Amino acid sequence: MASHWEEFYATHLPPSDFEDNRTLLKEFCDRHNKCGQRIALITSGGTTVPLEHNTVRFVDNFSAGTRGAISAEYFLEHGYVVIFLHRLKSLEPFTRYFSGQKFMDMLELHDRGPNTTITVKPDSVDVLAPILASYKAVQEGGRILYVNFTTVSDYFWLLRAACECLAAYGPKAVLYLAAAVSDFYVPSNQLPTHKMQSGAGVPNIQLQLVPKLLAPLVSLWVPHAFVVSFKLETDETLLISKARDSLNKYKHKLVIGNILQTRRSKVVFVTPDNSYEVVLSREQMLNGMEIEDTIVSNVVLSHTDFIQSQKY
Amino acid sequence: MASHWEEFYATHLPPSDFEDNRTLLKEFCDRHNKCGQRIALITSGGTTVPLEHNTVRFVDNFSAGTRGAISAEYFLEHGYVVIFLHRLKSLEPFTRYFSGQKFMDMLELHDRGPNTTITVKPDSVDVLAPILASYKAVQEGGRILYVNFTTVSDYFWLLRAACECLAAYGPKAVLYLAAAVSDFYVPSNQLPTHKMQSGAGVPNIQLQLVPKLLAPLVSLWVPHAFVVSFKLETDETLLISKARDSLNKYKHKLVIGNILQTRRSKVVFVTPDNSYEVVLSREQMLNGMEIEDTIVSNVVLSHTDFIQSQKY
Repeated sequence: MASHWEEFYATHLPPSDFEDNRTLLKEFCDRHNKCGQRIALITSGGTTVPLEHNTVRFVDNFSAGTRGAISAEYFLEHGYVVIFLHRLKSLEPFTRYFSGQKFMDMLELHDRGPNTTITVKPDSVDVLAPILASYKAVQEGGRILYVNFTTVSDYFWLLRAACECLAAYGPKAVLYLAAAVSDFYVPSNQLPTHKMQSGAGVPNIQLQLVPKLLAPLVSLWVPHAFVVSFKLETDETLLISKARDSLNKYKHKLVIGNILQTRRSKVVFVTPDNSYEVVLSREQMLNGMEIEDTIVSNVVLSHTDFIQSQKY
Repeated sequence: MASHWEEFYATHLPPSDFEDNRTLLKEFCDRHNKCGQRIALITSGGTTVPLEHNTVRFVDNFSAGTRGAISAEYFLEHGYVVIFLHRLKSLEPFTRYFSGQKFMDMLELHDRGPNTTITVKPDSVDVLAPILASYKAVQEGGRILYVNFTTVSDYFWLLRAACECLAAYGPKAVLYLAAAVSDFYVPSNQLPTHKMQSGAGVPNIQLQLVPKLLAPLVSLWVPHAFVVSFKLETDETLLISKARDSLNKYKHKLVIGNILQTRRSKVVFVTPDNSYEVVLSREQMLNGMEIEDTIVSNVVLSHTDFIQSQKY
């Protein structure tokens, strides 16, 4: 059975850097709210469920954080400020293009002793320059706040703390919940302290359902915000009905559904009133277009309508 | 009960890029063996155990791949060529210093339209130049082969393929098995096809023991190589006895034991004859010394002795 969300907080300690992150969140939200900015909280990447207190093993959710990282760039382009609440070491906006070796291979060393310089190779400058320019503009404007989590319990604490700061934005806040949150966990009081010994036989992991945070989030924490959740399935026949169930249950504004195998080229928008597909054509994909461009444009349009509707 | 290793191969398909990797391994090993090079196979990072065929959830092992990535640099410094068999996206030698944002922050954009250039800031050049020089020298010499895995079954297939190529090196090969390999798995024929539905109640994951590859590796695949395994525990009282058990069982040359919480500053070398600690002092740590420097130096010395002993 699902434990209640309040019980989950009561039995799981906040992450060790929680107070620091809470201060950063508050400072970031207060600063931009004064300027009347719209804000997007983007959650991204998978959460883990430890199987031991001294964690050697854990259950993880498949997610590189691609959707969240790309979407963050488009929200910034649309003038939003962004809280990027992401799994440690998942993809991040801007830097997502450059893995370690790609980076090293772009560089040229001009070894002249004390006057040694390192430059980016001319043929890489074309690609890197616009990304670097956007990155630096966003950094200098202090328009993005990076906050990271690893376990599902870290995620719970940080998401609630972010919501507490976002409430003041009323309808100007979008919550774009793209993280792949664990559905199951092992309760803290049932975890072994040490690494399970394989010699002791095969462990039988007894999982519990993680409480759904969407319920208190929509009804209590940010009741005036524009909340978008994601649903990932591998079985196409379940997708729309599960998305619709979620909307009916939690009463938020939009579920974006996607199928694991086709998620880079197709999603379905499910709203309380209707549902429609967003699809990238083969030609658009070959031209390097990203489906998040269209997804975020659509979300921003709906968000604008929503803000307008709250004024009358 | 542990399934037998042959049964594991019989019931798990090789990864989709297996033949490509096998060709690369063979070419790499043949080329360097002609020159009489010593070779190190380094395994690094954790393996995953999928919980569904269309994998959304998996069990993972804690490991950033730090030990393996750093050790690879030191083996290269000692003149070895290196096969770096690592978890996809775990730390890699040389690039381990530069995460995405660190990299972007090192760069300076000089925007001059068509003559735009990007340079590394002068104060970052000092740090980056020697690492970049080593990286480029190793790349140009073709002295490292990167091969990656994600699941424990990928790891099984690639490790055996690597051993088949390494056998020709006889005692000139070191196997430095630093990867954190899953102890438990869900047999392929018991995996659900689709993402488990949380509405369907709580799944009860029935795990099996993963067969220990050290047995066939030492006795059949590379019987003349210098094989080093690692043992990670969280409970200090178990460490040496478990390391000694492993040596007695598999008859390899060395177990390097470490405790999760202190692994950056202390390890214990357990050989068939004795055991001794390798410890970094507080001062050495503050000076930026890495324990892998000493670990690899000790392994190389023992390997040299071993090669000598095989000649008489």
